[in-house]
Amino acid sequence: MPAATAAVATEAAVATERWDGLLLGATLATLDAETGYGLVEDGALGWRDGMLAYVGPRDGLPGEIDALADEVIEADGLVTPGLVDCHTHAVFAGDRAAEFELRLQGASYEQIARAGGGILSTVGAVRAASEAELLRQSEPRVLALLRDGVTTLEIKSGYGLDFDNERKMLRVARALGERYRIDVRTTYLAAHALPPEYKDDADGYIDAAIGWLPQLQAEGLVDAVDAFCEGIGFSPAQTRRMFEAARALGLPVKLHADQLSDLGGAALAAHFDGLSADHIEYTSDAGVRAMAEHGTVAVLLPGAFHVLRETRLPPIERLRAQRVPMAVATDCNPGTAPLLSLRQAMQLACTHFRLTPEEALRGATQHAAKALGLADRGVLRTGMRADFVHWRIRHPAELCYWLGGDLAHGSFAGGRRLT
Amino acid sequence: MPAATAAVATEAAVATERWDGLLLGATLATLDAETGYGLVEDGALGWRDGMLAYVGPRDGLPGEIDALADEVIEADGLVTPGLVDCHTHAVFAGDRAAEFELRLQGASYEQIARAGGGILSTVGAVRAASEAELLRQSEPRVLALLRDGVTTLEIKSGYGLDFDNERKMLRVARALGERYRIDVRTTYLAAHALPPEYKDDADGYIDAAIGWLPQLQAEGLVDAVDAFCEGIGFSPAQTRRMFEAARALGLPVKLHADQLSDLGGAALAAHFDGLSADHIEYTSDAGVRAMAEHGTVAVLLPGAFHVLRETRLPPIERLRAQRVPMAVATDCNPGTAPLLSLRQAMQLACTHFRLTPEEALRGATQHAAKALGLADRGVLRTGMRADFVHWRIRHPAELCYWLGGDLAHGSFAGGRRLT
Ligand SMILES: [Zn+2]
Ligand SMILES: [Zn+2]
Repeated sequence: MPAATAAVATEAAVATERWDGLLLGATLATLDAETGYGLVEDGALGWRDGMLAYVGPRDGLPGEIDALADEVIEADGLVTPGLVDCHTHAVFAGDRAAEFELRLQGASYEQIARAGGGILSTVGAVRAASEAELLRQSEPRVLALLRDGVTTLEIKSGYGLDFDNERKMLRVARALGERYRIDVRTTYLAAHALPPEYKDDADGYIDAAIGWLPQLQAEGLVDAVDAFCEGIGFSPAQTRRMFEAARALGLPVKLHADQLSDLGGAALAAHFDGLSADHIEYTSDAGVRAMAEHGTVAVLLPGAFHVLRETRLPPIERLRAQRVPMAVATDCNPGTAPLLSLRQAMQLACTHFRLTPEEALRGATQHAAKALGLADRGVLRTGMRADFVHWRIRHPAELCYWLGGDLAHGSFAGGRRLT
Repeated sequence: MPAATAAVATEAAVATERWDGLLLGATLATLDAETGYGLVEDGALGWRDGMLAYVGPRDGLPGEIDALADEVIEADGLVTPGLVDCHTHAVFAGDRAAEFELRLQGASYEQIARAGGGILSTVGAVRAASEAELLRQSEPRVLALLRDGVTTLEIKSGYGLDFDNERKMLRVARALGERYRIDVRTTYLAAHALPPEYKDDADGYIDAAIGWLPQLQAEGLVDAVDAFCEGIGFSPAQTRRMFEAARALGLPVKLHADQLSDLGGAALAAHFDGLSADHIEYTSDAGVRAMAEHGTVAVLLPGAFHVLRETRLPPIERLRAQRVPMAVATDCNPGTAPLLSLRQAMQLACTHFRLTPEEALRGATQHAAKALGLADRGVLRTGMRADFVHWRIRHPAELCYWLGGDLAHGSFAGGRRLT
């Protein structure tokens, strides 16, 4: 019967054009404007095949609601782009709460080191943990970040410091992304600290770490390469060698730069067209200008600043003046930033660094995505990924205002409900 | 049949002696010692009729597990006394996120006041809200505090500033306690700010506020009386008059004291045998000594210190030296401390005030209970109220270490499961 066939064909055509979901009624903070939140009152958000198909006012929808989408969600509150945590060390074993306590009891760094504290205690715990155990211990942290609105997460290696253990960390990071069906971007940070077996031979260790990279990349475990360029970390020359190896493999770089002193790290990262220079409390004018020239994002990490009670502020005014995009991240790590919430990092960025709430939100979405080389998210706009969070608040400034609490009503990544 | 009757009688006797619940396997941080956490590994906690019937090691239990309790919970992680938030303004309407944002955009206090900000904007929102609406808006805050481990909560009036609206706030506080079946302790803080209708007549307002108190007390709405003694608040003489009225009615007092300047507020509170002096950044040696003599608790409020970026620290060393008990509270309020987590206040107390994690935990349990005049909670000990929290952590220092996250597995207040 040709008539029936035609009807089926029409239905199929309509079905492929229907959206998978439509969220109605919330205020949208689209960030889809040079400045301002891009607020849309009584907004509508439609998505299909993981991408945003409509972003605008409810009364601009191109048809009847029931005909438009398979699932319609009536909402109030606020919708923002999904948060992007672009700098974490969330995969680790053990914790350093005992060290935190020793410090508050007045112990010196030497006493803490003698008591088995410091980064090498985490390296020991990571090496001792099986891959399953490392996953088990890291999972609650990732879950906490997701429940507070993160839909894209960067995770660094750097507590393994040998081939097998760096690989184990990166595999766990990938496994966490698969388990929660979110994008986990992995960063190779073997140049994080010097392992005991290379004591007094940092150059030898950098050679080894460069040697492990091709295999890890071949296994699909590396999205970017990072290093800790600092007096107590690796020198600019060693960092440069690691970056050259990355460039030869076509991998983008980012850098822990100028946190405790100005070694010109931000400029070094910029000259390699780095995705980001992170921390940057001590970065000079020249460093800021280099970042502006090369499109390198400034990743601000107020958690470590807060926990370590630092007083040297990153050059916020110069970054603003040079229009360097500023991102905000948790730096989630057991030693200096035990943060389980990107929203709390935004709060600290406002309080300590005097970012405006708008800068902090853009820093945890659009600019954080840029710091990961991702141009398909961070803004609510038709054609972008359907990554968004539905919050139990009225105004985006509340994201930076409240300390604690459970504000995320639900999150979507690639159009799929996360929490 | 006499035999059957005897059997029933025996069963009833056993039943009244059985515990309602028994939690096994977690580490207990009892705080039941002069110093230290009072840790018990592989602990057991039994309760009956809302009180703790056993606190100790599993292998010290006085019988077979199944015979001991109606409900047995196998647990790991950590158990602490239920947290006590002894200073909050959690009942309010509206929020002040817009004002927070204006400040970060560089607006002056005058500009904010002209834009309708400041405490009087909250007074306006509270007065405009019905009792049901005020309850609806306050509920998520109380729930957030409970979900993060609070089992006893103080709530102040002070945004109504007339009889009907102060009464409305206190009734909402009571209703929240009934709804969540926790102890809400209400504090009458009419002397919080001068309402517009008493402009230039603070003494007249104090007379009026004193006049409202007996009726509110008669309605069972007042557990304690508080005031804001400060250059921008009420004078020591006005505070004294309010305290004398409280004393005449047999009500205990506490005070917002010496936050921005030293008006001798802490000493004033102590001389009325006050339960607590709160904030006390500017309190003098003499004030600390008076607190020590009168058993007045120092309530530290690091949230406002953090948000306002204050630099003047409370006299922690002198409080330690004089053995004044230090409590820690959220001060949850829309203007200066939008905190929805007592654990985050503990984190800030460690970071900003250099409390040890042990001091912070004792400050959010035992000493906070004392600041409310409650001697039946804050420590895990047989005969105390069965108020406790089961946490997903291993060590109590982690309570002050993590920022964000969802660490409370479950809470019990008076032996009843809360969350
Ligand atoms: Zn880092
Ligand atoms: Zn207060």
